[in-house]
Amino acid sequence: MFRRTLLITALSLSLGACATQLAEPPVADAAKPATAASKRAPNIIFLIGDGTGFEFISAYRYAMSELGQPLASTPFDEILVGAATTYPDDDTWVTDSAASATALATGVKSYNGAIGVDSQQHPQQTLMEKAREHGWHTGAVSTSQVNHATPASFFTHHSSRKMYNEIADSFASTRYGDKWSFDVLLGGGMSYFNREDKNWLPELEAQGMTVVDNYQQLDSVQQLPVLGLFAPVAIPYAIDDEPRLAQLTHNALRLLSSAQTQSGEPFALMVEGSKIDWCGHANDIACAVHEVSDFAQALQVALDFQKQNPNTLIVVTADHSTGGLTLGQGGEYAWYSERVMAIENSLEVLVAGVLERSRDEWRSYLEPRLNLPLSDEQWQQLLATEMSGSEDKRDHAKRIHAALVKVISETTRTGWTTSGHTAVDVPIMAIGPYADQLRGYKDNTDIAKVLLQIVR
Amino acid sequence: MFRRTLLITALSLSLGACATQLAEPPVADAAKPATAASKRAPNIIFLIGDGTGFEFISAYRYAMSELGQPLASTPFDEILVGAATTYPDDDTWVTDSAASATALATGVKSYNGAIGVDSQQHPQQTLMEKAREHGWHTGAVSTSQVNHATPASFFTHHSSRKMYNEIADSFASTRYGDKWSFDVLLGGGMSYFNREDKNWLPELEAQGMTVVDNYQQLDSVQQLPVLGLFAPVAIPYAIDDEPRLAQLTHNALRLLSSAQTQSGEPFALMVEGSKIDWCGHANDIACAVHEVSDFAQALQVALDFQKQNPNTLIVVTADHSTGGLTLGQGGEYAWYSERVMAIENSLEVLVAGVLERSRDEWRSYLEPRLNLPLSDEQWQQLLATEMSGSEDKRDHAKRIHAALVKVISETTRTGWTTSGHTAVDVPIMAIGPYADQLRGYKDNTDIAKVLLQIVR
Ligand SMILES: [Zn+2]
Ligand SMILES: [Zn+2]
Repeated sequence: MFRRTLLITALSLSLGACATQLAEPPVADAAKPATAASKRAPNIIFLIGDGTGFEFISAYRYAMSELGQPLASTPFDEILVGAATTYPDDDTWVTDSAASATALATGVKSYNGAIGVDSQQHPQQTLMEKAREHGWHTGAVSTSQVNHATPASFFTHHSSRKMYNEIADSFASTRYGDKWSFDVLLGGGMSYFNREDKNWLPELEAQGMTVVDNYQQLDSVQQLPVLGLFAPVAIPYAIDDEPRLAQLTHNALRLLSSAQTQSGEPFALMVEGSKIDWCGHANDIACAVHEVSDFAQALQVALDFQKQNPNTLIVVTADHSTGGLTLGQGGEYAWYSERVMAIENSLEVLVAGVLERSRDEWRSYLEPRLNLPLSDEQWQQLLATEMSGSEDKRDHAKRIHAALVKVISETTRTGWTTSGHTAVDVPIMAIGPYADQLRGYKDNTDIAKVLLQIVR
Repeated sequence: MFRRTLLITALSLSLGACATQLAEPPVADAAKPATAASKRAPNIIFLIGDGTGFEFISAYRYAMSELGQPLASTPFDEILVGAATTYPDDDTWVTDSAASATALATGVKSYNGAIGVDSQQHPQQTLMEKAREHGWHTGAVSTSQVNHATPASFFTHHSSRKMYNEIADSFASTRYGDKWSFDVLLGGGMSYFNREDKNWLPELEAQGMTVVDNYQQLDSVQQLPVLGLFAPVAIPYAIDDEPRLAQLTHNALRLLSSAQTQSGEPFALMVEGSKIDWCGHANDIACAVHEVSDFAQALQVALDFQKQNPNTLIVVTADHSTGGLTLGQGGEYAWYSERVMAIENSLEVLVAGVLERSRDEWRSYLEPRLNLPLSDEQWQQLLATEMSGSEDKRDHAKRIHAALVKVISETTRTGWTTSGHTAVDVPIMAIGPYADQLRGYKDNTDIAKVLLQIVR
């Protein structure tokens, strides 16, 4: 049941809410042919699925489908145009999110950890900065804290992704005359903007920023600039809570297109499905599929907007793939998508749930949440992770996590090879003006170069 | 050194040999614009990398490159157009080579094991049969035995891929008037055509077929039809012997284009990099990269031909991905391409070499062939696979194989998740007339449908 409702939710959200809010698109947009020759530069919606290699798209597609039935279509299908290499300028072929986001934002490769700076730590102009310089509206949406590597690399310059407070400070304090670097910034991260040593919020509000911290407030905001911080750090996983990225994307587009109607200027919006990567690091397949679903719903919102506003370029890619996900494990020619979709929580939640219970409650806690046909031996493996006397609590959590990954992987035939990233090429999807320039095999810096030349 | 010479060998082979042999292309071809509107249907060269998912292309690219140097280009880069789903009509999302080759040859999905038949075991018309019906020249090249699943599905109809003798009989005995189903068939498989209960060769030669069993003979063949069987079963791995696919492809194109010059009819040629899949099953990364290199060289031969004969459609895809390969393992953000390229033999050869030596010779045998910085602990793990008294020799070989996979994977940071196939989408590359119809996300049956409609 759940499986089938995921996409329908996305469609009704976008068709319902957007149809009301976006009922009056800028007339010029609708009338003009959407060619690269249009006098006005197109809007740019750049969706980045963090860690979302081809494997994750395949997993999502099969998770949405049923054996023997016609294959489910996904919002990715109609707009696939190519694939990209993601290697950093570092002593490895495997990038991290910072180096890859920097490449996607600036067109310049850098070292792992770099935020908007090159290998010599020199700041590089980002897509959003160039857009700002040319009077565009700008924004970003993420399910991680907004000062995480990907959004940070589109707006700020720091030698290390770990400088979370400094990155938050950059977002709060970087000014272009009477404006910030962004018009709309939505995601998690409240604890970095309102922290012990500094609370930016009163200051920002005094300077004219609307600051919101819940989704209802956001829905009623009518004017930019707006900073929406909906969680202390990251927004919860879609599998454990509500999918949020589509709603955030809808609101960002609603506000940006309204501003555009007034100003006549294009906008550039970056939308990150941040936590697909986090599920990948955790080797958590159910978590990953639900995050990809959330990302797909956000893409559907963008596609619906693009249909109404054809002078909009949508680009979708990943910064890298994570976890070494494959759909096949242990020799069997199978991937049990229906078993994946039966799982009701992230491993993060399940491990925490196990930790706060005594061992004799574990099975009754896990059984209705995993909904998997585990063997007695597999249950014994899970129960064997009981804490040994002197064990550190964190080590214990890791052992429980590893045991769950093992039995879920065996039972669903999901393969994982690493808790880190991989060097495998990632997909590129695109639609709208200039989309043709993204066809075929590209490097991640090529994508940025196409986008940067559009801003004028 | 070796790394850099691989591609150069391919280029000089194709530019050298082809330039001589193909000096006089059909004039009509060179003069005509290569559009779908051309009156004459284009030649079709369909290259299938068995098991060659995106991961294998990425691995090949990085293996050809050096950190800190400009990334190597590959023959795949310029012609990437999309990605394909590969699921069979079966109770699993994971296809085998037979079902996927049947889909690619007929446009009809079937069960795992099916050779040119649908789920009700009804024969389906294949690309090569339709080509034959329309008077085209046809052929196939593979590094496996020619009666293996992929070539078999393009020419024959059998309920099971395991019917090797029956498939060989079909190749030898299926007639279209005075012709066979193929004009050229090159690969391994002599032991199926000349076997204890039946030797087809004298009969075929008496009927006008040129039969060759070595590469020198093939180079001097001037006329179709020709059957070339260069090994009892499969052709040896490229890493252990010489890469052969480019040479076979060159000869197939030389003979088909010569026949075309005389007849004015197009040709359809299927070229399979068969053993990329076999390396994947063995989780043998060095083997895989060298097989992809051989496949890339064959593609380069086809691309050079297409440049001279633009009314030729080249399509490249995979039937599925194999092994759950990923470039990242065990948490480290690295894939040691130079270590992969240092390995000098396939695991098949290394395991056989170990088995025929006493344990105290293992290290001196393996060290100069692996060329890997293995730790003492890793050497101990390898040496611990000594045969236990009562062990079956095959089980022993498996244990040695598994130990080698483990230490090579750790040392190169190569990830594998299965000895079987995966359900992850595979790349599509295409160039020439109708290539645009293969852009974007496709199903494997869509690829066949595009090709089938070209034959007229
Ligand atoms: Zn990550
Ligand atoms: Zn296979």
